[in-house]
Amino acid sequence: TFFTMSLANFREIGKKIVCVGLNYSEHAKELGNPLPKKPLLFVKTTNSYLTEGNPIEAPPDCTNFQQEVELGVIISKLAKNVRKEEAMDFVGGYTVALDMTARDFQHEASKDGTPWFLAKSFDTSCPIAEFIDKHKLDPTNCELFCRINGVEKQKSNTNDMIFDIPTLIAYITQYVTLYPGDLLLTGTPAGVTQLNSGDQIEFGITDIIKATFFVK
Amino acid sequence: TFFTMSLANFREIGKKIVCVGLNYSEHAKELGNPLPKKPLLFVKTTNSYLTEGNPIEAPPDCTNFQQEVELGVIISKLAKNVRKEEAMDFVGGYTVALDMTARDFQHEASKDGTPWFLAKSFDTSCPIAEFIDKHKLDPTNCELFCRINGVEKQKSNTNDMIFDIPTLIAYITQYVTLYPGDLLLTGTPAGVTQLNSGDQIEFGITDIIKATFFVK
Ligand SMILES: [Mg+2]
Ligand SMILES: [Mg+2]
Ligand SMILES: [Mg+2]
Repeated sequence: TFFTMSLANFREIGKKIVCVGLNYSEHAKELGNPLPKKPLLFVKTTNSYLTEGNPIEAPPDCTNFQQEVELGVIISKLAKNVRKEEAMDFVGGYTVALDMTARDFQHEASKDGTPWFLAKSFDTSCPIAEFIDKHKLDPTNCELFCRINGVEKQKSNTNDMIFDIPTLIAYITQYVTLYPGDLLLTGTPAGVTQLNSGDQIEFGITDIIKATFFVK
Repeated sequence: TFFTMSLANFREIGKKIVCVGLNYSEHAKELGNPLPKKPLLFVKTTNSYLTEGNPIEAPPDCTNFQQEVELGVIISKLAKNVRKEEAMDFVGGYTVALDMTARDFQHEASKDGTPWFLAKSFDTSCPIAEFIDKHKLDPTNCELFCRINGVEKQKSNTNDMIFDIPTLIAYITQYVTLYPGDLLLTGTPAGVTQLNSGDQIEFGITDIIKATFFVK
């Protein structure tokens, strides 16, 4: 349909990327964090988007550059104060993305109590794969993977999420209106890795989609 | 010109609101913070925008709702790795805005080392005045004011900024591309106030512009 085709341009249509931190318990453990009692939200702005064929670049002076593979949920219509029971009606499709993170910037910000903006929202910090039609994926039961230079580093089923997609949409839209084309990144499983220049990152959803990027 | 007219629609054209914290020394003191050594950056997303005639609403369960009057700088063209000396060429106009803040959410986030997103980017968190042509304002020497229920609470000249506009644009664009219509909020002077339902907020730039909003 025209609508689905247009939503495939979510990068141009959308206004923001709302991200969830620590939404898989094994990842919270590897970072040494307690499990969150409510969704931990932050944002990437659209300058973060990167499509295949373009290099991922660490921001200036970053010394610990890491990837986080995440299921992306694409919002189809204006969403405010959405009830959990109706939340999936606001989902128009999916993608898979990397939440690229300047981990040293993030640790410094957390220590100082300052914002995460530069740690998370620098240019090229959100490499994405193609749009996935909403009928072609079960977001509650699919397997995310990420390989660095051919070696498997992340592999986990989305059924391990702490806060599921309807819970996230209901929580976020109490505070923040979501628009058509906005992207929700639902958190990463364990296995984040310190990257080096030249590394190849393959990531995707098993049997559904895959993308490949390189670190400049 | 057509260009200036179109930039007056910066709320629709732009993709983000990049904000600077603690950019006036008296405000840093009133919050009990040390002066920053580099610009402290965070972001509001476009759901934050609010125009006159619409009520400002505190987010659910906020118990300390505060206003921060700030000079807004509107970006006119794509800006990446801009040098300080050329930074003003990327400015297309100005506005004056409130950086509405759920101070209790912000303090909790700072204490926990978590992001500021919900403290700063909830719906209605960025009430704005009209577009100001770039030739009608000297951003290095103008007086911001804010009155609550007719009582003056904030009044300060922009010449008290710690990091000036060219420094901010040069710093930000090392990390983050700015797009036409993006808004840069340059920080608030001292005098932030805890607000109550029904409060009237008048704010502006002396002899240049004024806007009036109410807290729901
Ligand atoms: Mg993440
Ligand atoms: Mg001075
Ligand atoms: Mg502020």
